[in-house]
Amino acid sequence: MDNRDPLRIGIAGLGVVGGAVVRMIQGNEALISQRAGRAIRLAAVCARDRNRDRGFSTETVTWFDDPVTMVRSGEIDVFVELIGGEGGIALESSQAALSCGHHVVTANKAMLAGHGAALAELAEASGVALNFEAAVAGGIPIVKALRESLAGNAISRVYGILNGTCNYILSQMESEGSTFADCLKSAQELGYAEADPTFDVEGIDTAHKLVILTCLAFGTQIAKDEIFIEGISSIEPEDIAAAEQLGYRIRLLGVAQMTDTGIEQRVHPTMVPKDSQIARISGVTNAVAVDGDFVGSIVLSGPGAGGEATASAVVGDLVDIGRGATGFPLGRPAASLVPYQRARMRAHQGGYYLRLHVPDRPGGFATIATYMADAGISLESIVQREGRSRLAGDQAETSFRTVTIITHDTTELAVRDALERIVNEGVVAGRPQMIRIERH
Amino acid sequence: MDNRDPLRIGIAGLGVVGGAVVRMIQGNEALISQRAGRAIRLAAVCARDRNRDRGFSTETVTWFDDPVTMVRSGEIDVFVELIGGEGGIALESSQAALSCGHHVVTANKAMLAGHGAALAELAEASGVALNFEAAVAGGIPIVKALRESLAGNAISRVYGILNGTCNYILSQMESEGSTFADCLKSAQELGYAEADPTFDVEGIDTAHKLVILTCLAFGTQIAKDEIFIEGISSIEPEDIAAAEQLGYRIRLLGVAQMTDTGIEQRVHPTMVPKDSQIARISGVTNAVAVDGDFVGSIVLSGPGAGGEATASAVVGDLVDIGRGATGFPLGRPAASLVPYQRARMRAHQGGYYLRLHVPDRPGGFATIATYMADAGISLESIVQREGRSRLAGDQAETSFRTVTIITHDTTELAVRDALERIVNEGVVAGRPQMIRIERH
Repeated sequence: MDNRDPLRIGIAGLGVVGGAVVRMIQGNEALISQRAGRAIRLAAVCARDRNRDRGFSTETVTWFDDPVTMVRSGEIDVFVELIGGEGGIALESSQAALSCGHHVVTANKAMLAGHGAALAELAEASGVALNFEAAVAGGIPIVKALRESLAGNAISRVYGILNGTCNYILSQMESEGSTFADCLKSAQELGYAEADPTFDVEGIDTAHKLVILTCLAFGTQIAKDEIFIEGISSIEPEDIAAAEQLGYRIRLLGVAQMTDTGIEQRVHPTMVPKDSQIARISGVTNAVAVDGDFVGSIVLSGPGAGGEATASAVVGDLVDIGRGATGFPLGRPAASLVPYQRARMRAHQGGYYLRLHVPDRPGGFATIATYMADAGISLESIVQREGRSRLAGDQAETSFRTVTIITHDTTELAVRDALERIVNEGVVAGRPQMIRIERH
Repeated sequence: MDNRDPLRIGIAGLGVVGGAVVRMIQGNEALISQRAGRAIRLAAVCARDRNRDRGFSTETVTWFDDPVTMVRSGEIDVFVELIGGEGGIALESSQAALSCGHHVVTANKAMLAGHGAALAELAEASGVALNFEAAVAGGIPIVKALRESLAGNAISRVYGILNGTCNYILSQMESEGSTFADCLKSAQELGYAEADPTFDVEGIDTAHKLVILTCLAFGTQIAKDEIFIEGISSIEPEDIAAAEQLGYRIRLLGVAQMTDTGIEQRVHPTMVPKDSQIARISGVTNAVAVDGDFVGSIVLSGPGAGGEATASAVVGDLVDIGRGATGFPLGRPAASLVPYQRARMRAHQGGYYLRLHVPDRPGGFATIATYMADAGISLESIVQREGRSRLAGDQAETSFRTVTIITHDTTELAVRDALERIVNEGVVAGRPQMIRIERH
């Protein structure tokens, strides 16, 4: 294939992203071919309904009903997989494309989280590209940054806001003072959340993206079952308010961090200092921060989802292929990825926010303070407020005090042990709230 | 040359950046060769003083006194130019390297601003790379983002904080309430500003970086003499305070923006809304924002200078060369760059902050308001404060009022005309202050 021939693209999946990719390729045709050094031409598509009006012409392209048939047709050089799903036809057609020497561009984080290393090995064996900028944080070029720009750095941490749905809900809770349930409903009405929001709000989507970043940052095998995940559904308006008063905001972060005992991969609601760049990311915007030994800290932010921003990433990947830039899909040979060594979550070190409901009788506050001290936990602040409310499970209104604690850096083990003692002693009503703090 | 042979590097200039590059290549050797797919080996260096202790061993490398001799020695594959300066030996040795088929990596913004297109053509003719991530915004991967990640987008604007010295001074004026002169002095003491700070504080350094971004974003020829430049030395503490009250911060921005009549390239102190991401960048940190038709807006921030962060960019460029990724240095063939069409500054549209000292006699305020209205300028706010001070040039203390105006979007021409009339009428004492506002 002469390098100046048009690069023939076959797209499987013409949904929101696929449609935007087609509009981008067609609308910015001249500049794209200049930047790629050759034309990028939509040659084939594969989608369920040929007759739907998608706002662009696909008359000159070949339609296929089945992506594997498209891959094997001889009509394409690059297979753009926008079907989605960890396995099934997305995986089968991607494998087929790589095996027969076609480049693959995909936005499919679930497939990469499940089969990324195997797919990368296939790509390396065929000498073709497997590009997936669109799979993590939409239009933000974090994959390229980790794989290429920061390639000389030993990375110590990569973390960020990787799910727009959660960030929208938390931002709304912040600005409106409303409950998780209300904000989820408004997110659903605006199309920012699915009818079944579990995948987003329980942190699974963030986890899929995080494992990809972990692999790129640390050169470890993809270990999606080795990840600590907590979603945002337990966050109460009073946590948001307390965070605000204490100088923090709550964000759902995915964090991959090198420690002395291994790598922490964790997804959980996190209190971040109000003046940090991450705290200032509101709404559906995503942001990713990377700490490297030479670069220091950089932060990339932008639209993490949406058809057009995702298409921008897909087309950037296509232009890379057009100009002949094929490197290792995972930033180094897939066979050289080292086993993922998990740092135990109980060894996690950091600050903690704790909120406890203490029934209104003498000694409760003192007991809590004592148990925290016994566990060796030093407190940055402890605030007690009077309150009266119907706690979950209670039949009648109870008088209680809310105790809000911010700890200095301690370990997860110490905090869990102290909380267990406090709960077992019956000092508190209801489940204590615990939110990890990411200070730097 | 077998692709698996070590990539032999020759570095000219072993100052702060050069030293950090050597430490990075040696310290992170294993991960760099994994990511590059081959070893990256320091083969030769060229620096004035061989005997200085630089904190790393250069015993196994060949020393040269002259970079051109090093280039032609046959001992290197990549020439890393860290000498600096627009022309002279930096240019001569870079040209020599490209001409004899060596890749070039440089951090030299002045050379690129002056000779970028000619160097890019040389690189293209030889089929080698000319990489310069380090030349703009240090460790922030903005060159790669514009050249590769966002390649499918029609860019409408690129702007940012490109000079850490200025941002440090403005941040200090903000937090300390002190004068430009005092903050410059403290910057000099901390090593953030040169003894002769003109290059930084008068916006020239920002302009050099901006022309490179303009070329990458819009595919236009590099036009460094077509840039509107205003430095930060005229910013007074009262402007900083007024900005704060009005919900803005003052930053020195470089802005390249597509308009109906051409491209604006401008460097000037700018009021940006306090809640924008750019406003929140303090100290020596840099940030660059890009608006594209598909990606929307993305912001990249991080250390814009310093040996280690700059080395991170240089080594990222080396890894790209190691894995064989050579594209067009300027993101498209240098011969295809279109002439830069300058939008006239007087046609610039935007909001304006104006501060006028009005001697304390009846009618002054009314005259100002009338002249603004005559020029078709609609005001967002106009605030008058009483004051008493020694204005520049006055021998005695004068009583005056300070009038602070924020305009709605208008044109530079209208504002200049109105100010000229106001000054000519003798309504104000001293020179009016005018700061452009970047609202979105």
